[in-house]
Amino acid sequence: MTILCEPMVYYPEHVITNEDTIFFLDELHPDTPNKEKAFRMIRNSTIEKRHLILPLDKTIELGDFGERATIYSEEARKQSTLVSQQAIKKSGAATKDISMVIVTSCTGFMMPSLTAHLINSLKLSNSTIQLPIAQMGCAAGASAINRAYEHCQQNSSNNVLIVALETASLCFHREANRLQDFITNSLFGDGVAAVVMKGDDNGSGFKLSNTQSHFMNNSEEYITYSITSNGFHFSLDKDVMHSISKVAPKIVQFIEDSFDKKPHELDSYIFHTGGKRILDEVERCLSLNSSSLDNSRNCLRDTGNTSSVAVIDVLKRHFKQRKVGGLGVLVAFGPGFTTEMSAGEWV
Amino acid sequence: MTILCEPMVYYPEHVITNEDTIFFLDELHPDTPNKEKAFRMIRNSTIEKRHLILPLDKTIELGDFGERATIYSEEARKQSTLVSQQAIKKSGAATKDISMVIVTSCTGFMMPSLTAHLINSLKLSNSTIQLPIAQMGCAAGASAINRAYEHCQQNSSNNVLIVALETASLCFHREANRLQDFITNSLFGDGVAAVVMKGDDNGSGFKLSNTQSHFMNNSEEYITYSITSNGFHFSLDKDVMHSISKVAPKIVQFIEDSFDKKPHELDSYIFHTGGKRILDEVERCLSLNSSSLDNSRNCLRDTGNTSSVAVIDVLKRHFKQRKVGGLGVLVAFGPGFTTEMSAGEWV
Repeated sequence: MTILCEPMVYYPEHVITNEDTIFFLDELHPDTPNKEKAFRMIRNSTIEKRHLILPLDKTIELGDFGERATIYSEEARKQSTLVSQQAIKKSGAATKDISMVIVTSCTGFMMPSLTAHLINSLKLSNSTIQLPIAQMGCAAGASAINRAYEHCQQNSSNNVLIVALETASLCFHREANRLQDFITNSLFGDGVAAVVMKGDDNGSGFKLSNTQSHFMNNSEEYITYSITSNGFHFSLDKDVMHSISKVAPKIVQFIEDSFDKKPHELDSYIFHTGGKRILDEVERCLSLNSSSLDNSRNCLRDTGNTSSVAVIDVLKRHFKQRKVGGLGVLVAFGPGFTTEMSAGEWV
Repeated sequence: MTILCEPMVYYPEHVITNEDTIFFLDELHPDTPNKEKAFRMIRNSTIEKRHLILPLDKTIELGDFGERATIYSEEARKQSTLVSQQAIKKSGAATKDISMVIVTSCTGFMMPSLTAHLINSLKLSNSTIQLPIAQMGCAAGASAINRAYEHCQQNSSNNVLIVALETASLCFHREANRLQDFITNSLFGDGVAAVVMKGDDNGSGFKLSNTQSHFMNNSEEYITYSITSNGFHFSLDKDVMHSISKVAPKIVQFIEDSFDKKPHELDSYIFHTGGKRILDEVERCLSLNSSSLDNSRNCLRDTGNTSSVAVIDVLKRHFKQRKVGGLGVLVAFGPGFTTEMSAGEWV
């Protein structure tokens, strides 16, 4: 047995609405072409608010990579400890029994990674295995779950603490004024989530039975960073919108292999909150009911796309509706173009 | 069975000797205190040469993070493909049977990571699992081996391609003039290594039987990055020299648990090439014979400390002397302070 326990999530106190986003982008870029098109797209995003680690005025004034990295390191340390403690407590596992800690974070960087900080701050065992994942982007939450699954399959006494922490606001660059920059600056949000995977069968949660990765050839440019002296610059190519129809047959196959069922016959669809268009495409390509992705859509509405955090937030939302014996899939998409999938049952 | 096959290594064409290092540091910093002390330490390092991806004059003139990141991305793509092809060929595994690709690299950064590039360039299966590791520093080569071991334990048809690629020269900063900067700038080198781990029992190599991680509390400052607009800045605290005596009892325990033997009774000591002092400490604290670490010392002499690459280079050197049935440990140290250990037997 390998059970994902109930996650804990935390969003920082500073809030930005879609109208705030449009207002400040308009002020920063009064004469930019495509602005009105961008603003229509932002108004159509279904995002109501996002959370930021800094007030908006400080976010807009962010300086070079060094300044951002320092803020990241301080905030990441501060935010990750409490939510991890809560997740461990919720799981019923003893702190000393955590055998691996995975941290996913693609919006800031530090070495030693947050895994080292957490072993110290949570007083985890000195034999805890560290697995920091910085380069899987939005797929990283599901990627961490799939790697944790392999670790728990080794030994039923293994338990994994997974922490996803993102500070997309530290990747904001005031001078960026392309259409895709406006979309990026209105889509991503900050947040942190923690969840424990237990290798034994004590407890309730989402019991995993199968995992799968899928890589789409020659799609490296769909979701990319560039790096400059001012930090990471996210870039979303518009081709990313066509990715879901291409990868959908693989998700259908995974569901059939895992459960011998059609996609619409499952009980829980724990999908990464990529954006409205991505979720519409998932619904369409898998022929799902219109309410199947409600938890993902609500997560998008409340937080934007929080990269690796989002799929764990969506998992938490599904905990409230879980029915023992219900079947579900957990899926996240990220750079590569990569799809990480897990199949499981509520226990 | 889980066998590490013979690795392949590649070092870039530009070569710098210790005397070259002293010459250019002297030219850049004519009036810096502690210079003579640094130069004595550099002359005592036993490093004869290191390899660089760029000529020395271009390395000295490196600009901001963006310039370095662009060079990294181009060089990493160029260098990683051929050495990976050679390692796969050497292993006898079919390219289509690689189920996971791990890339370790702490001296540059890209997203999508090099794992995505390699799936495309090597034409690996679309179901290949990606595990990019950027934040384990010099421990990452052994960390990758230990994560690959867990993956191969899942299923004997699993095979992992591990690629370690470092460009320490892209972390050179001409203005850095503290004693520890001089040491860093004389110690680290560039290189790339690839090795295949096979889940089945067809082939010869180093058959793993046990793995272990150890984390030393409150030692996060021993080996760190800082990040500025000009890139990653490595920093080695002098306390790192005391780490080996503290961690040695854990290595002794691991060897006893794995083989029921004393450290000096093994046949192969595949230790990361941290530096002369680190290797002296390993030899002293484990009461090893004076020739036990020859392969690590020779690797240090020929390439400097190539971070995550080094332990795989040392593994390759041990292949030439392997005797079927011989027992060995593979150990690397890195930020955290983290020690990653594997135990195995030559087959």
